[in-house]
Amino acid sequence: METLPLSRAFTLIEPGPVTLVVTNDGHKDNVMTITWTMVMDFSPTFAITTGPWNHSWAALCDRRECVIAIPTVDMIDTVIGIGTCSGADTDKFPKFGLTRVAAHHVGVPLIGQCLANIECRVIDVVERHGIVVLEGLAAWIDPARKEKRMLHAVGDGTFIVDGEKLDRREAMRSKLPDGV
Amino acid sequence: METLPLSRAFTLIEPGPVTLVVTNDGHKDNVMTITWTMVMDFSPTFAITTGPWNHSWAALCDRRECVIAIPTVDMIDTVIGIGTCSGADTDKFPKFGLTRVAAHHVGVPLIGQCLANIECRVIDVVERHGIVVLEGLAAWIDPARKEKRMLHAVGDGTFIVDGEKLDRREAMRSKLPDGV
Repeated sequence: METLPLSRAFTLIEPGPVTLVVTNDGHKDNVMTITWTMVMDFSPTFAITTGPWNHSWAALCDRRECVIAIPTVDMIDTVIGIGTCSGADTDKFPKFGLTRVAAHHVGVPLIGQCLANIECRVIDVVERHGIVVLEGLAAWIDPARKEKRMLHAVGDGTFIVDGEKLDRREAMRSKLPDGV
Repeated sequence: METLPLSRAFTLIEPGPVTLVVTNDGHKDNVMTITWTMVMDFSPTFAITTGPWNHSWAALCDRRECVIAIPTVDMIDTVIGIGTCSGADTDKFPKFGLTRVAAHHVGVPLIGQCLANIECRVIDVVERHGIVVLEGLAAWIDPARKEKRMLHAVGDGTFIVDGEKLDRREAMRSKLPDGV
């Protein structure tokens, strides 16, 4: 994993990919699959929506840190496997053969298999909506990884894979923050 | 436009496409481009993030309704045009040749050119984060439209187009809500 400038971290979340969120409850690392994510500014600040029914909720609220990891299309069945079992009764890192890579700012690991990882601290929880607001502290990318296409969950059990990329940088210039 | 069951409306937002948000301030329809969106449950409830610097903010907070329209790849330059000017000094419906289609539940129009539209009411505003929470009231889709590929903003002036679709409905069965 190599450093990605923090000013570019939101570009990992803004396209709306399926993500993996890594937490630790003080005893065990856990990981969940989540597509209910949102960029909130260019700082970078992100939101995810979950709730008390989710095993990672307590760890997010109590330990106030996580890693958002970005899987790619070759990981689709791992992503679904992680999303269809619970950390309450499953030790997901060994079960899914995930490689822990030490983070620099948080006490939970990056996922070595993923294209990118963002270390985050929880800066607010909007309890009435289950919204967890995150501030990115550092971002990492694996530039040697050949497969870079992300997954987008439709929500009905189908997934859309990244297709063609279109460049409209000139037309968008007035809306791009510095460093992007 | 044909009715899309409301139970499926979240499947338009969950993949993370670029959206257009239509509002009316009591005098004039306006439309903005926004990719800071998030599904919040299956009800359907969505969130968008914006703020007082945005011309649509006052209309969202005061009139408490909007339409979320889903454009496709053939509309990319319209989407960018809408996103790089302001309703403060531009009448965007005529400028971009957008066709108004009457909504059933809200006083703002659907956009006839878009693949799908969701009529929404504002159920909460989390002011400290600029988060506007929306409840879908009705959803519409144009099944005759040939181009269905959505756009995903990377945030750096490039856009990813929907590619291949992968079916994992069987593996996801335990996580799919009724009617999806």
